[in-house]
Amino acid sequence: MFIRFKENPLITPTEIKPVNENYKVIGVFNAAVAKFKSYTILILRVAEAPQAKKNEFKVPFFDVASQTTKIKSLDDSKYERKDVRAFIPKKGFDSLPTFLTSISYLRLAYSNDGIHFKILSEPFIYPHNSLQTYGIEDARCTKIGSIYYLNFSEVSPQGVSVGLVSTQNFKSYKDFGTIFLPDNKDVVIFPEKINGSYYALNRPSTANNNMWISKSPDLIHWGEHRLFLKSGNTYWDNGRVGAGGPPIKTDNGWLVIYHAADVNDRYCLGAMLLSLNDPTKIIGRTKIPFLEPKAPYELKGFLPNVVFTCGSFLEKDQITIYYGCADQSIAGGTISLTNILNNMKN
Amino acid sequence: MFIRFKENPLITPTEIKPVNENYKVIGVFNAAVAKFKSYTILILRVAEAPQAKKNEFKVPFFDVASQTTKIKSLDDSKYERKDVRAFIPKKGFDSLPTFLTSISYLRLAYSNDGIHFKILSEPFIYPHNSLQTYGIEDARCTKIGSIYYLNFSEVSPQGVSVGLVSTQNFKSYKDFGTIFLPDNKDVVIFPEKINGSYYALNRPSTANNNMWISKSPDLIHWGEHRLFLKSGNTYWDNGRVGAGGPPIKTDNGWLVIYHAADVNDRYCLGAMLLSLNDPTKIIGRTKIPFLEPKAPYELKGFLPNVVFTCGSFLEKDQITIYYGCADQSIAGGTISLTNILNNMKN
Repeated sequence: MFIRFKENPLITPTEIKPVNENYKVIGVFNAAVAKFKSYTILILRVAEAPQAKKNEFKVPFFDVASQTTKIKSLDDSKYERKDVRAFIPKKGFDSLPTFLTSISYLRLAYSNDGIHFKILSEPFIYPHNSLQTYGIEDARCTKIGSIYYLNFSEVSPQGVSVGLVSTQNFKSYKDFGTIFLPDNKDVVIFPEKINGSYYALNRPSTANNNMWISKSPDLIHWGEHRLFLKSGNTYWDNGRVGAGGPPIKTDNGWLVIYHAADVNDRYCLGAMLLSLNDPTKIIGRTKIPFLEPKAPYELKGFLPNVVFTCGSFLEKDQITIYYGCADQSIAGGTISLTNILNNMKN
Repeated sequence: MFIRFKENPLITPTEIKPVNENYKVIGVFNAAVAKFKSYTILILRVAEAPQAKKNEFKVPFFDVASQTTKIKSLDDSKYERKDVRAFIPKKGFDSLPTFLTSISYLRLAYSNDGIHFKILSEPFIYPHNSLQTYGIEDARCTKIGSIYYLNFSEVSPQGVSVGLVSTQNFKSYKDFGTIFLPDNKDVVIFPEKINGSYYALNRPSTANNNMWISKSPDLIHWGEHRLFLKSGNTYWDNGRVGAGGPPIKTDNGWLVIYHAADVNDRYCLGAMLLSLNDPTKIIGRTKIPFLEPKAPYELKGFLPNVVFTCGSFLEKDQITIYYGCADQSIAGGTISLTNILNNMKN
């Protein structure tokens, strides 16, 4: 089935220098994937946190007015740690905003063999507007023609919205603004028009966290929204579901690798197949996940028991999947397409 | 300032026959407004509830398979009344869906004088798909050329999304599906393109319930979303804000009548002015509301202390505003545009 690279984890926080002074990199994970010239590029989510003593509540944020990253010290009589990721206001201070413990941005890593990566020292996309003051997270990359489209979560006190940029050279990018309103996550754009429309899977954060499918004439404006897939009721998908990387075209249908979490936030990966002519139709699904957290770097880390993919690619019958481990590091592996299709129930 | 019609309330539930057998009409409110031929048309939200004994938990829903409205009896060991509007699962039954106590749909009322209305006996738009199983609510009507566009809240276990249809005759309509993902409400579409794009105000339901502004090439697909107006911190707007009817073009700017609620869900109406060439720019706002719940039919009803408008029109210097009262009945009144503009602070 799924074969982990023996070099895993491929990238860990210790090998990355922070871009902010007096910060430490606490995670490098959930990377988008692009094939560019002869390279495999990972568009890494790097999370940096201010260096602080154990009981200091220091939080980072991007200050739009000065266009710099600042640190705020929270008053521990008003704030408490929600989990490793966030500080929330204590009872009686509900009008205060939540803060994240780290700020994320996107950084590039290049490889010739898909295993060994050279990480650039500068950010590729750093928070730069008022909807990104808490960070930019979990990019996905869809190549359409010669253009690479990158969408990502934008986090701010306004919630989690979805931004879109395009690049042709991975040096500069064009900004298309916010394509999905808060709260929405796990957006993946299909790599071509189908019957005249672009399609995207996405997950608005409502009471039940289901996947939707939306259409667009231009990748920037989205509508014709339809409910796509409800979270399940089995041991691995009774929490929520969300798309992984952009759908991959195969002879049999659109292959979508997706994550599901159980009620305890344990994340696994499964796959489904959509009709080539009508991607709103699911024609097959793996009954059980093909990847569950089992390796030490998946079981332990910033957020334990998480495997979370934002990108993969198909060569002949082999799917190469990169995935974030425990919200801390990046790993990869391969699985055969035939094997996945054989394990689908219609 | 605002002068209530002396005939208020103009329409109350007692004068309307339900369309469902063994139901009662509990509210007729929050109507969109259209000028059609020589008529003023109100596109009423009518709410009907199953007749039930005091302690019976009977809830209505639209059953898509049979295309009929059905009644479900909830088990009172599993459900409790949240408020007059909804039954929610008791602790320990969190996986069960919430239900509404009534089902809403849209019905037309015609008038020659804007005061006395003839209400049609059949629905104009009744729930008909899986995103509308709990009802269709709070329509807004924007006339563009000779076409009337109606958007409305669609309510279902998937949350509150926004649907769009168009009509030219108020007899049949064309369905454009869902234009905003859940949860979103209070969408108003501007009546013409501005610099090549359509615009709409809307309110995604995030932690802080603010207003956003979005752009579209075709009214169906929306993007370029931007935060527009945060809820305030004064006695009347510290809960949430949302647009009223579609913006009205004036020589001085786009006039937007909007509602604000305080933390106790007391709803008032205010006004703001947007730049004609760039509706993302607010150039004036009334400091205090021009309409607060004071009349008996505003103070008492299904949901007390609510005035909520979905439509108004301007003739010479006079704005005629129709508004829902206490989620139960419909009233109207007038205010001079000059008066509103004079009361705006920049």
